[in-house]
Amino acid sequence: MTKVPVTLPDALPVVLISEVGPRDGLQSISRIMTTADKCRWLTALYQAGLREIEVASFVPAALLPQMADAAAVVAHALTLPGLTVMALVPNLRGAQAALAAGVHKLTIPVSASAAHSLANVRKSREQMVEEVRAIVALKNELAPHVKIEAGIATAFGCTLQGTVAEDDVVRLAASVIEAGANESGLSDTTGYANPAQVQRLFRRVRAEIGDKTGAAHMHNTRGLGLANCLAAFEAEVRTFDSSLGGLGGCPYAPGASGNVVTEDLVFMFEAMGVNTGVDLDALIAARDVLKAGLPDEPLYGMTPEAGLPKGFQPAPRVSK
Amino acid sequence: MTKVPVTLPDALPVVLISEVGPRDGLQSISRIMTTADKCRWLTALYQAGLREIEVASFVPAALLPQMADAAAVVAHALTLPGLTVMALVPNLRGAQAALAAGVHKLTIPVSASAAHSLANVRKSREQMVEEVRAIVALKNELAPHVKIEAGIATAFGCTLQGTVAEDDVVRLAASVIEAGANESGLSDTTGYANPAQVQRLFRRVRAEIGDKTGAAHMHNTRGLGLANCLAAFEAEVRTFDSSLGGLGGCPYAPGASGNVVTEDLVFMFEAMGVNTGVDLDALIAARDVLKAGLPDEPLYGMTPEAGLPKGFQPAPRVSK
Repeated sequence: MTKVPVTLPDALPVVLISEVGPRDGLQSISRIMTTADKCRWLTALYQAGLREIEVASFVPAALLPQMADAAAVVAHALTLPGLTVMALVPNLRGAQAALAAGVHKLTIPVSASAAHSLANVRKSREQMVEEVRAIVALKNELAPHVKIEAGIATAFGCTLQGTVAEDDVVRLAASVIEAGANESGLSDTTGYANPAQVQRLFRRVRAEIGDKTGAAHMHNTRGLGLANCLAAFEAEVRTFDSSLGGLGGCPYAPGASGNVVTEDLVFMFEAMGVNTGVDLDALIAARDVLKAGLPDEPLYGMTPEAGLPKGFQPAPRVSK
Repeated sequence: MTKVPVTLPDALPVVLISEVGPRDGLQSISRIMTTADKCRWLTALYQAGLREIEVASFVPAALLPQMADAAAVVAHALTLPGLTVMALVPNLRGAQAALAAGVHKLTIPVSASAAHSLANVRKSREQMVEEVRAIVALKNELAPHVKIEAGIATAFGCTLQGTVAEDDVVRLAASVIEAGANESGLSDTTGYANPAQVQRLFRRVRAEIGDKTGAAHMHNTRGLGLANCLAAFEAEVRTFDSSLGGLGGCPYAPGASGNVVTEDLVFMFEAMGVNTGVDLDALIAARDVLKAGLPDEPLYGMTPEAGLPKGFQPAPRVSK
């Protein structure tokens, strides 16, 4: 009998790392990256295995000059096969522009803090739910295949109003799904979350909206970013937002985002045996591409500095 | 009927934060702190509510000049009521000196990596178990009330040999308990641990030695320090080692310890509603005392820089 070589199929990643640096990171810093540098960075992220990237924000260029080239960046991202090209839109007008550019997925921030909602988008929470409904109607007309995520911002607390009622968060997640969003995740916009709260709140949201529960968007402002991601993973969350090099400014600076560092997040999951689909060496190499485009911007991340452990094995990549 | 005012009793802390900065921190840096500065720092840590402190290491002064005043530091620590005064001893000779100084608890590092054991203390793992047995015999003769912890070093991996077999770790923990140690914890000496491994290994150790399972000593070398502490907490660990300001050198520097930052660890537990008995404001104030004693040494910690969240409530302090 001849032995036929068996090729095991590649296993699908268990968790989806949704890279937000090109949007959340860039929009939190003052420097402006050129379109060419953004495109090189996107390609490097893609080559490391990232398959969902929030590439831009569709907002008036007068407000965020860093995002003036959003359509050009989307056009480049669309050339990368299999990549889900995502953009943030705060309102219907942004959604029109993003849909015209051809994105695959829109993300709309809806704040659970009444005070933050008014300060951030000059709309009440109820008005933002209606904005989600209008965006859903628009995309159903223009591009029905596009997915819509409504992320609940300030879900774990707010620098303006302090505590945010958990009931408000759960109710808002249910409202945006009722308004037609495909998924709703929770964002720790302020770095206030703790692991017990993350587990409790994601479990409550899942009880309400089931598999439409979306990403955990955690910040590392008080050092708890990875612990909160672990807590969310234990509460069945499978999509995690993070940014390469923690781009988004120093987590110490007031107002800075302190995004979870993609490199450390991927290291945590891969070391645990949880397949992210991301190659850590290629991911760490992508830092050089980012640095070339933003030479003076500080980057964070412990794993890139310490290196991988001796004998480190990433999670298995093939189905058994 | 006259109403009698009811005073609710203070609740015991749920977790014990065991501060290791004065030993592990100081011994990892090149600067030498004066005895007076060490004593002021210990007092500040105590005033913040810490009730177990590893105050010194009893090793030859020629090897570690930072620890030459160990007996004097212990003498000061013994004046702080209710404090468990702990010292590290690598061998019988160190134990004699520590017992003579009057410590309440000895901690003996026993490496699970054969290569690390030989490199670090020039003894095999089996010889170190016999050293534990000899130290237990000595303390039973001289000071039977003293407790002995044998911490399993390199329990999660080793920079010399790479992977460390989990069976070796579990067997070693059982051996040191059989040799008479009161407890055995696990140390991530190299910053290799991940949360899945932490849970698995602590559960296996607990299955073997039950309530004699001791502290989780995690490092933040790759940013996973708090996530690993959370994982250990979920595996029923209730004692956590950490150091104020993450003292122990930059976690990026080769060989540096990258201790978990006490301030961030206490913030995580308190935010979760888990009583540590530590006052966060007083703990953050203790950084100034440490800085005064070591003016040029970098300190770490995100919570001290970001401040406590608006409306932050520590865990309840009274029994209900």
